[in-house]
Amino acid sequence: MSESGKVYLVGAGPGAPDLLTLRAARLIERADVLFHDALVHPEVIALARHAIVIPVGKRCGRHSTAQRFINKRLVDAAREHAVVVRLKGGDPMLFGRAQEEIDALEAAGIDYEVVPGITAALAASAHLGTSLTQRGSARSVAFVTPRIGEGHDPAEWVHPLIASDAGAIYMGVGQAAEIAQRLIGAGMSERTPLVIVENASLPDARRFYGTLASLPALGAREMRGPAIILIGSQFVERVTEADAAFTTSAVAA
Amino acid sequence: MSESGKVYLVGAGPGAPDLLTLRAARLIERADVLFHDALVHPEVIALARHAIVIPVGKRCGRHSTAQRFINKRLVDAAREHAVVVRLKGGDPMLFGRAQEEIDALEAAGIDYEVVPGITAALAASAHLGTSLTQRGSARSVAFVTPRIGEGHDPAEWVHPLIASDAGAIYMGVGQAAEIAQRLIGAGMSERTPLVIVENASLPDARRFYGTLASLPALGAREMRGPAIILIGSQFVERVTEADAAFTTSAVAA
Repeated sequence: MSESGKVYLVGAGPGAPDLLTLRAARLIERADVLFHDALVHPEVIALARHAIVIPVGKRCGRHSTAQRFINKRLVDAAREHAVVVRLKGGDPMLFGRAQEEIDALEAAGIDYEVVPGITAALAASAHLGTSLTQRGSARSVAFVTPRIGEGHDPAEWVHPLIASDAGAIYMGVGQAAEIAQRLIGAGMSERTPLVIVENASLPDARRFYGTLASLPALGAREMRGPAIILIGSQFVERVTEADAAFTTSAVAA
Repeated sequence: MSESGKVYLVGAGPGAPDLLTLRAARLIERADVLFHDALVHPEVIALARHAIVIPVGKRCGRHSTAQRFINKRLVDAAREHAVVVRLKGGDPMLFGRAQEEIDALEAAGIDYEVVPGITAALAASAHLGTSLTQRGSARSVAFVTPRIGEGHDPAEWVHPLIASDAGAIYMGVGQAAEIAQRLIGAGMSERTPLVIVENASLPDARRFYGTLASLPALGAREMRGPAIILIGSQFVERVTEADAAFTTSAVAA
């Protein structure tokens, strides 16, 4: 292991460059090689002073660069360079597919370290001023990503959402109609409040309030960036004085 | 609103001072008044260059200072100072009781902003090198905190854990025996792997692997700092070369 460099799997956070951690910023500054996802902010990448910068372009869960090829490049980079940073949007360990890279690094005997990042649901919750958990009324929150279509058991994401007081649905906006249909079909009330938060933490963040019944219409809007669905009784529309200017709302069906 | 200052509800992250976000660090440096929980690292508090520093001592969910009194102090501080920072361990919106403070600030017409932080489960997952979600096998994760005793419905935390592929149990180690009993009683296998991570992200972090059957014994150990339970099939003991020196394991009953 002493002959190879070290790979840092680093969470870049939800989008805003100043929501990077201090540790992440220092590692990027020291990096010899920087691999990054498509959604990482250019100002974050610009922190890399002398690194070879390699975009690996995964976007919204789709593989632009095959995972196995990324794994191999990480291993190869660590064999030639001391500090290899693999920058992922949000947190590496929550819908970040870090495990496949970790397993590849371990198999190759490469030293690694994971640096956590702010995940999208927390940035969205902060943006709204509405807690994911609330004393008394919301004691649990499920983080899921839906897989829809043949061969996939909807129970794997429907049941956690039904059983929990609140939910954060990652990479779901493109499948909004199916999500609403499945959850209503499983017994969740059509009137369950929810909100789509787009570009959470960025200056152009937007929020779209609705209910499970109006989710298909909300999800059909054109999104300008990554979006997350937060669902639960606390996500009724809250309009404060400061919000009013940029809040967009939807009327429940 | 223009006559009052602004209150920033800021996540201090899981413990390590360099897991603070850049935004949080800059706000603390600018703070006129800094309110902080008991678990915030001294180096983080030391970033406050000219602030009046006020510990409000909430620890592990127990109220050392009554919440209503904290709410009032935040409002009072914002009426006298421009930048008031309320620093909370982890993330303010996930088991951080931020909503009570937000509601009080809104009621008083005080401007506020929430700055997300790294939550303990993500730091624990990073420490272990084991993802909370894993493609194929772990598509959902429930974040819960158990309330045990008369008047509390165990379904509120038991069902989310049973329905999800993985779980993060906050503030649960002190109730480990009851948690194991409830989950086994609800049908979860005694052999379900889990791990307690103590002081995640700090140099003295420890991990205790086990199963639902051995959880009571694991939880009876004396913890030296805040601890979280991660449960799910992926949390079987992983011993890598680098780990071996500081891994403590438990044998499943």
